[in-house]
Amino acid sequence: MGRWEPNARGRLAKAALELYSERGFEQTTVAEIARRAGLTERTFFRHYADKREVLFAGSGQLQELFVRAVADAPESAAPIDAMAAGLDAVSETFADRRDFARARQAVIMANTELRERELIKLATMAAALTGALHGRGVTEPAASLTAEAGIAVFKVGFERWIVAAEEREMAEMMRESLAELKAVTAGR
Amino acid sequence: MGRWEPNARGRLAKAALELYSERGFEQTTVAEIARRAGLTERTFFRHYADKREVLFAGSGQLQELFVRAVADAPESAAPIDAMAAGLDAVSETFADRRDFARARQAVIMANTELRERELIKLATMAAALTGALHGRGVTEPAASLTAEAGIAVFKVGFERWIVAAEEREMAEMMRESLAELKAVTAGR
Repeated sequence: MGRWEPNARGRLAKAALELYSERGFEQTTVAEIARRAGLTERTFFRHYADKREVLFAGSGQLQELFVRAVADAPESAAPIDAMAAGLDAVSETFADRRDFARARQAVIMANTELRERELIKLATMAAALTGALHGRGVTEPAASLTAEAGIAVFKVGFERWIVAAEEREMAEMMRESLAELKAVTAGR
Repeated sequence: MGRWEPNARGRLAKAALELYSERGFEQTTVAEIARRAGLTERTFFRHYADKREVLFAGSGQLQELFVRAVADAPESAAPIDAMAAGLDAVSETFADRRDFARARQAVIMANTELRERELIKLATMAAALTGALHGRGVTEPAASLTAEAGIAVFKVGFERWIVAAEEREMAEMMRESLAELKAVTAGR
């Protein structure tokens, strides 16, 4: 019977990330997050299963978007170009979230359990992208290697995008990283 | 004061893997592993910190070998060719261990905690390889992307090498996977 709270989910995420950044993930309680957001614990648990989920709530959506863009690329596109379309699509969703992404990454890197969870997220995404490429008729090992290449570009491009001084758009960083991967694998 | 046991370490590893395969990793105790190996629990703990370590004891050595081969590649070698030299070196050490590698992989894939540990092993290896490439004068993002590409080839090549019917050498599978990665990134 909780009353409706405007943008409770977003306020909780913001409060959680602030607290994780200030005092560390482990040292923060759900009660503190709710208090900072001006909401109740009960409301927190209506939106998130636990305090870790605040950091990974977007993973499923991100993967779905990535996979769909790869699957929907023009039939004539080479596997790596379908992957590039996927990277473009995910870049768009991050556009106005650089500050959140920066803070989130710092929290994750500071905690072993969260780093493990992040690695699993990327491995799960690679498997889903491999499936999307199979759906396009790409055989093995090309599908797995293209998916792993896409995740490598995403990982490196993302890390460069959130560097403190960086102001270029994520899509540009991804394209640059993909171009660089092409250059290094070509032996340059 | 434990008496010397011939090849205790190898016998424990063999016994552990047999038991993990038969009844699952979680359902196996150190006491059972020692008994199957005809040794004592005390001897087990002289060789391994816990039952998980039996499966990851070789990780440090593998990484060292990989990194050293990349670092020691001819100065004139392109980054990706230094990585190929590393893949050749690790392949050699796996040469007569395909059955062990197959059984180990099946145990790891069946357990979430072990899969996480394996992902961390690969991420740590990628970071170490990036460092080795920096040591060769390779700048960012080329170093990170080459290291990630190397790990992608290792992962996919390894999975193909341990497929039941596969009889080709690991080095051959790695070279084939690297050639395929070059092909897909070139848009073929």
